Amino acid sequence: MENGEANITNKWRFNNASSNVNIDNNNNVTTDNSTKKSRGVTVREARTMIMENLNHQDQRPMLALAHGDPSIFPCFRTCQNAQDAVVQAISSGQFNSYGTAVGLLPPRKAVAEYLSRDLPYELSPNDVVLTIGCTQAIDIALSSIASPGANVLLPSPGYPYYDVFSAHIGLETRHFDLVPNNGWEVDLDCIEALADANTVAMVLINPGNPCGNVFTYNHLQKVAEVAKKLGIMVISDEVYGHLTFGSNPYVPMGVFGSIVPVITLGSLSKRWIVPGWRLGWLVINDPHAILQKYGVVDSIKRIASISADPASFIQGALPQILENTSEDFFTKVINILRHDADICYDKLQDIPCLICPHKPEGSMFVMAKLDLSRLDGITDDIDFCIKLAKEEKMIILPGVTVGAKNWLRITFALEPTSLEDGLERLKAFCQRHAATN
Amino acid sequence: MENGEANITNKWRFNNASSNVNIDNNNNVTTDNSTKKSRGVTVREARTMIMENLNHQDQRPMLALAHGDPSIFPCFRTCQNAQDAVVQAISSGQFNSYGTAVGLLPPRKAVAEYLSRDLPYELSPNDVVLTIGCTQAIDIALSSIASPGANVLLPSPGYPYYDVFSAHIGLETRHFDLVPNNGWEVDLDCIEALADANTVAMVLINPGNPCGNVFTYNHLQKVAEVAKKLGIMVISDEVYGHLTFGSNPYVPMGVFGSIVPVITLGSLSKRWIVPGWRLGWLVINDPHAILQKYGVVDSIKRIASISADPASFIQGALPQILENTSEDFFTKVINILRHDADICYDKLQDIPCLICPHKPEGSMFVMAKLDLSRLDGITDDIDFCIKLAKEEKMIILPGVTVGAKNWLRITFALEPTSLEDGLERLKAFCQRHAATN
Repeated sequence: MENGEANITNKWRFNNASSNVNIDNNNNVTTDNSTKKSRGVTVREARTMIMENLNHQDQRPMLALAHGDPSIFPCFRTCQNAQDAVVQAISSGQFNSYGTAVGLLPPRKAVAEYLSRDLPYELSPNDVVLTIGCTQAIDIALSSIASPGANVLLPSPGYPYYDVFSAHIGLETRHFDLVPNNGWEVDLDCIEALADANTVAMVLINPGNPCGNVFTYNHLQKVAEVAKKLGIMVISDEVYGHLTFGSNPYVPMGVFGSIVPVITLGSLSKRWIVPGWRLGWLVINDPHAILQKYGVVDSIKRIASISADPASFIQGALPQILENTSEDFFTKVINILRHDADICYDKLQDIPCLICPHKPEGSMFVMAKLDLSRLDGITDDIDFCIKLAKEEKMIILPGVTVGAKNWLRITFALEPTSLEDGLERLKAFCQRHAATN
Repeated sequence: MENGEANITNKWRFNNASSNVNIDNNNNVTTDNSTKKSRGVTVREARTMIMENLNHQDQRPMLALAHGDPSIFPCFRTCQNAQDAVVQAISSGQFNSYGTAVGLLPPRKAVAEYLSRDLPYELSPNDVVLTIGCTQAIDIALSSIASPGANVLLPSPGYPYYDVFSAHIGLETRHFDLVPNNGWEVDLDCIEALADANTVAMVLINPGNPCGNVFTYNHLQKVAEVAKKLGIMVISDEVYGHLTFGSNPYVPMGVFGSIVPVITLGSLSKRWIVPGWRLGWLVINDPHAILQKYGVVDSIKRIASISADPASFIQGALPQILENTSEDFFTKVINILRHDADICYDKLQDIPCLICPHKPEGSMFVMAKLDLSRLDGITDDIDFCIKLAKEEKMIILPGVTVGAKNWLRITFALEPTSLEDGLERLKAFCQRHAATN
């Protein structure tokens, strides 16, 4: 096509564009993948990579034990109250207009009241910024603390999106350990060793993704003391807040807001099983207004003012959702997760090449270590997951994606019989590949 | 409070944080506002500044002729079909799950089909990325072309969000003129003078915000030829697409995608009067796949994969909204806007200190130049708008916010009697401040 050729030979200037493709003067194209690798792998990308290896000739249903989204299962269907609230909001015609930078006032007030139930002080609506799911709360939190030379401490194993977004905005990350044989508690000495004059914050995920742990009150208090000593804030990702079913109750980090300033991140996504609704919050737990004094609150609001907003009618529905959801619904979800966690942990005990150091007591995940010495023909966790997808039409996340090479992150939040099916397939796979010595 | 004092004197390290607040070793706080000024002023910020001057003792209703959102007026209520589509999507329970990076397939297919109706070629769903309103489409478009040293050409008068977001990501902006006495057409010589080897794109807003113009087919073709000659892409912001009521029909820039690669931005917000629903799109109009070859499409998809997603059930409702909205609804909205534009232009003719060079024929805005020589005690457009807010309890945007000092951007998209009321107040204000010579 002549016109097309003219267009290709035309000297287009967006060769400068932010991509890893370069075109030289002879129109030769080369691709540089090096920056891509250093960016880390999102949960989404890893899942895509493994799904490419699914065997579609296999007539069995595909089983995904890889992401924290059980919304496709009828037993996890969200409550009628939440659905009704959104229907009413949209039908009212009162929420078709633009919102405001930090979110409409009534839902911010509702979030403040909802979270204050578990705090020793009252939050104000001004402490709340509504976000597009917890993901955007992460974006805003990290963007507001980023500056040239700053670094943030992230847990490992952790949630890889923190690394990906930090790389995107040029914020340096350093990783502290969660200790598997100590209930996945934070290695506090590691925190102190990593932090320097440029460290501005540490991130904690509680209940834990990917480890499925729930931090105790005492441990969180120690974390607060260490953070205070280092002069850094705590960003507490509590997207799995209240989803606990073991012996440790959920304790919001904001309880320790008088010791250290805390930014709490959360959303409707997990407790209400509606990750597609994209409604979350960033909340400032800082009774001594330290973040205000240091300009961090200004930064947060400035970033919020140039960021996209959650849909107005979901905001409009939020008060009814937060205030009127019955305990029965929450209890039902917790009971299914507890049952799932029991099934998962018990069945993992039965698989010799998988070592699960800590029974999950919260969130939707558990970590299991691969004992490669008990397997033949499996080189590492990625290889394990690819072959598993191919042979058993199921998906588990390789631990390397969450900072734990040769571990697996297993989601147990499925309808219980599907979970059992998945774990049987996992066991069959491990048996088939068991080392013969 | 001793504990509080201990916290304030504690040496907190987020002094590094991205803010304009500095705290020295003696805990003295200083604020640096210089970077704030260079960032530009969003429409949102200017409106806030003026609203602070509203006289709340004035019993009359506040009239806002300042933003493109008539959704509060019953005559502009969105169509029942759109509302029903969202209610059905949420009630189905089928859209509670996470979406995908570029958006669910059925709505992307629907957008491709919807836009292809006005193009000489067929778009594919792969050319479509669903976004959180047109705002996020802008974010993704600019982010995907930004790289060290790159610059983008923006229209002036224009939409200030482009400047604010470009500054945020470190993308240099240069401004080309739209010529008031030439129907606000692009000064093509200016484009050629501004572009250099680092220019990657130019932005066009059509129908025009803030000028209310609609570019002709011939003029857009010339723009395409110039862009091709310069080797730059065109980012065409068509958020007001189809909202035309004058002699020039709406011509999507994508029509010229065979001449120059085009990225089209759009959303439901304006044509369906639902800016709060936050559903938009970024579409690649590039039949010769130049953007693909140069890695720009990869950049777009990579940025989309680390960006927040629009709510899944709004995506789910999109096919029904795009396919089944009756022409009657669209015609009704156009008729009201045409009537509003007539009222506005006629009344402006009656106000000597305001010169309106071009009757609006699209979008929701018109630009009027202030003849300060005909006014006493008014120093500039900001002063005009502040005093207008104070004396007449109404809001108009000062032109400086859109790149036109001592002009006004007037929104005419109101319920007609409210618009007439507002224009009467404007006239009264101008008469009150008329120069006495």
